[in-house]
Amino acid sequence: MASLDDPGVRALLDKPNHAVVSTFNEDGSIHSTVVWVDVQDGRLAVNSAVGRTWPSNLERDPRVTVMVYDENNPYDYVEVRGTARGSTEGADAHIDRLAKRYLGVDSYPFRTPDEQRISYVVEPTRVRHQKQR
Amino acid sequence: MASLDDPGVRALLDKPNHAVVSTFNEDGSIHSTVVWVDVQDGRLAVNSAVGRTWPSNLERDPRVTVMVYDENNPYDYVEVRGTARGSTEGADAHIDRLAKRYLGVDSYPFRTPDEQRISYVVEPTRVRHQKQR
Repeated sequence: MASLDDPGVRALLDKPNHAVVSTFNEDGSIHSTVVWVDVQDGRLAVNSAVGRTWPSNLERDPRVTVMVYDENNPYDYVEVRGTARGSTEGADAHIDRLAKRYLGVDSYPFRTPDEQRISYVVEPTRVRHQKQR
Repeated sequence: MASLDDPGVRALLDKPNHAVVSTFNEDGSIHSTVVWVDVQDGRLAVNSAVGRTWPSNLERDPRVTVMVYDENNPYDYVEVRGTARGSTEGADAHIDRLAKRYLGVDSYPFRTPDEQRISYVVEPTRVRHQKQR
């Protein structure tokens, strides 16, 4: 299988492309949403606030699929399937790093007073890289 | 719930943004891939070749989630959950229309001699539109 360390995959993930995170809803259907993503210690890392739909889905069932395609060439994409591990520790610093990466600002500007951030790191079971053109 | 007829959703789908189609693998994990999409009679329509992974998944389990985000503003996206209905009839003409939409050519240039195209139309059970910025 492909690896997040492959140069082509790394190039795709080095750019601030967005990710589509897909999780299991309670009724078994698939929930997909668009999020920021970066790489931490060779694994995909995404961030949300505790209690939102997809983190709640992951608390119930940690299986996740993350799709990242190159917004300048959607025929170049990586699909990562795996298991998500959530942590609130370091999640505030992580969302600030993501805000830097995607918005160019030092601090995440959309915090609400009552939210607690949570980071999920994806332990990959399968990495599929396609580059068709 | 939102509808594919909502002006904001329609604007998103009128542009040749790509779709991330998520289906159920045999082992229960989520398969996500990037495809072309258009709207037929008010429903999302995607196209593949018979025997590939995600059409095979849909033959086993027709539940599907399709995510389309604006490649120029990923904070504007629509998630459609529903049931896919496949048909080989008209699928060749459909892939040609998609090739026109995405590549600007009259005929899909990547056909292989042995492939049979198949179109899937998604009967929506839930449409979620987010436009955060």
